[in-house]
Amino acid sequence: MDSDRRADVMDPACPSREVLRRIGERWTPLVIEALSGGTLRFTRLRQAIGGVTPRVLTATLRGLERDGLVTRTIFAEVPPRVEYELTPLGSSLLEPIRVNRQWAETHLNDVLEARDRWDAALA
Amino acid sequence: MDSDRRADVMDPACPSREVLRRIGERWTPLVIEALSGGTLRFTRLRQAIGGVTPRVLTATLRGLERDGLVTRTIFAEVPPRVEYELTPLGSSLLEPIRVNRQWAETHLNDVLEARDRWDAALA
Repeated sequence: MDSDRRADVMDPACPSREVLRRIGERWTPLVIEALSGGTLRFTRLRQAIGGVTPRVLTATLRGLERDGLVTRTIFAEVPPRVEYELTPLGSSLLEPIRVNRQWAETHLNDVLEARDRWDAALA
Repeated sequence: MDSDRRADVMDPACPSREVLRRIGERWTPLVIEALSGGTLRFTRLRQAIGGVTPRVLTATLRGLERDGLVTRTIFAEVPPRVEYELTPLGSSLLEPIRVNRQWAETHLNDVLEARDRWDAALA
């Protein structure tokens, strides 16, 4: 994309479309939310999220590090201590994530009822 | 989930976690945004989004219909006319989607620069 063109997710060629997908990835909002209270070690982060395998959480964290949303700090201790923390860019994602979260929690019953109606109509 | 328990995406057992994923699915925000101006036929909707195959768009629309976000109306014409429209529940998703979109478009360059730094550090 030319740098003088405005980003537009409705343009299939604009890389902002891919950035939008990052926000929506399964574990992204849960990692960002879990780190909103401060730094966490891997095991504590995994507990705070729940339901995520170590392998998938590691892959998610690498993606978030690459995108500049999370930093990983290794402390030279025995055994080494590894802590994850939101960057300022990662913290700026908290607002959209909380708007999404509020929608999901507020409209949960509407969605579940719609699914019941749909499934009953097909039965 | 008990109906007297508050929905909470940070609870791995709460179905709101799955509803949050729906918001984040690759084509969901683009379909909702494309339908925000009013009803569209399938071909026009597909053109408005761009980069999506008919098969994937059909599957996305079925999921959004099942969740009560989109309606599909078939008009008894020859050939039959099929139109897609946002429901009020679907329209309520426009606000979160626009907050996400604005984040992606505003921070696109920050994310791309972080990726360049990450990839350069690995090279």
